[in-house]
Amino acid sequence: MKIGMVGLGKMGLNLTLNMLDHNHEVLGYDTDLTVQEKIDNENFTYHSSLDQLAASLPKPRVLWMMVPAGKITEQVIETLSSHLEAGDMIIDGGNSNYKDTLRRSEFLEEKGIYFFDCGTSGGMDGARNGACTMVGGNPDKFKHIEPIFEDVSIENGYLYTGKTGSGHFLKMIHNGIEYGMMQSIAEGFDILSKSEFDYDYEKVAKVWNHGSVIRSWLMELTEQAFGKDAKLDDIRGVMNSSGEGKWTVETALDVQAAAPVIALSLMMRYRSLEDDTFTGKVVAALRNEFGGHEVVKQ
Amino acid sequence: MKIGMVGLGKMGLNLTLNMLDHNHEVLGYDTDLTVQEKIDNENFTYHSSLDQLAASLPKPRVLWMMVPAGKITEQVIETLSSHLEAGDMIIDGGNSNYKDTLRRSEFLEEKGIYFFDCGTSGGMDGARNGACTMVGGNPDKFKHIEPIFEDVSIENGYLYTGKTGSGHFLKMIHNGIEYGMMQSIAEGFDILSKSEFDYDYEKVAKVWNHGSVIRSWLMELTEQAFGKDAKLDDIRGVMNSSGEGKWTVETALDVQAAAPVIALSLMMRYRSLEDDTFTGKVVAALRNEFGGHEVVKQ
Repeated sequence: MKIGMVGLGKMGLNLTLNMLDHNHEVLGYDTDLTVQEKIDNENFTYHSSLDQLAASLPKPRVLWMMVPAGKITEQVIETLSSHLEAGDMIIDGGNSNYKDTLRRSEFLEEKGIYFFDCGTSGGMDGARNGACTMVGGNPDKFKHIEPIFEDVSIENGYLYTGKTGSGHFLKMIHNGIEYGMMQSIAEGFDILSKSEFDYDYEKVAKVWNHGSVIRSWLMELTEQAFGKDAKLDDIRGVMNSSGEGKWTVETALDVQAAAPVIALSLMMRYRSLEDDTFTGKVVAALRNEFGGHEVVKQ
Repeated sequence: MKIGMVGLGKMGLNLTLNMLDHNHEVLGYDTDLTVQEKIDNENFTYHSSLDQLAASLPKPRVLWMMVPAGKITEQVIETLSSHLEAGDMIIDGGNSNYKDTLRRSEFLEEKGIYFFDCGTSGGMDGARNGACTMVGGNPDKFKHIEPIFEDVSIENGYLYTGKTGSGHFLKMIHNGIEYGMMQSIAEGFDILSKSEFDYDYEKVAKVWNHGSVIRSWLMELTEQAFGKDAKLDDIRGVMNSSGEGKWTVETALDVQAAAPVIALSLMMRYRSLEDDTFTGKVVAALRNEFGGHEVVKQ
């Protein structure tokens, strides 16, 4: 199939190479001109404008977007929409908020353009060698693009998830679960590190990856991380986040689901971004007020 | 090696079969006489008393206990200690609290008996075909019994964890992590179930097991469970617990580790045991007192 790939960053580049492996013809676009040098394949052509990219694709056009969620995704869809026509298909493979996806789908639907939301998991290695993809959108039109998902995904690693929005929604929940799993693993190692015993964390993670109930890819990554830095002495415990955990918690609030573990995982990330907290100051001040307990001065 | 197996319940029976597969000679003891019929192997002999079992083992004796943690473990150790002598070795393969393990080890050490605490993970299937074992105790004497762990465990699935108590401690933390991972997975599916989308949960778990970041044995079990009962309509959400999660939280408090996710996972289990809560009554009453908000009557 001829596919337009919009965005040749880490994920887009690896997906492109993956598609080329499966004999798809990829027409790539990126604002960074140098990226074309990274792909040496006769089935790949670089295009420096979305206009040119759209003009070079056979109709109905199939375009896969792999650009940062938010503003850039919004701009690309706006620009693309003016170069596409009824019957064309856009796949958003990024981590877009499903509410944005629903809005964008409606906007594109007015022009007769089909919009698919594809949650993509498995990181760069997955993108290159077999991703996990969850795709929402028009079920009939999905059949037309299904071979791409079959090819770029690991065996049994793609799912048509239902109506528009359901792919990004599912990826969001996947990431929310990921937050809780990661925090739980991390808390376990934190208790180990404060215990009276002296463990080799790499060996602990390794034995847990062989036959235990908590064996998992995340535990394999844990093993890998401790293999590089036995006590993680070289890094600080600053836990950034990219938005999907926050959206999961917002969604839990919207649908009134009790999800304390995912919520707390997110808030512990926020806590990790502060060296000191105003919460701490207030509690310390109150203990001092009612009980005369000493405060720690700046 | 000749090994005495004390307790031929689900785990002990499967471990015995596993040991027999590896050409160990197993002398088994259980209070339930009928269990001997389940093992048809010339390398297995059944003994109806601990006295007889101890008398039949070559010195130094090696005994593996696979009995319920708590009172029964305590009684068996007390009885065994009177039939054993200096140099003998006892392995406690159950989910004992590591503090009990430390106390029991001291008691046995006075008699010159070596005590090993072995955390065993992987369930019945693991016990039968390759477990994950974490063993604490005397490092020199461990070498004598190491071949057993090598044989009953999956490849790379056993670890000598250090001094006495470290095996059961590590298994406790393993279970604490398990609580958090399970709760996080469950919360994700709960939000899915309350969402505007209509997912096939078995297919969702399946796709997440192929290439996603949260692929794990627990997610495989999730897939399996939804395969049997698509919406789990047949079971109630009552989440029992066996103690290890509680011990993990108690330990977190002892060492002053912030482990909110593991703690909340445990408390959500407690919440699930109550149809209604006193907490709920108090909050409802207070909303009524200050704001005149209606309460729901019995």
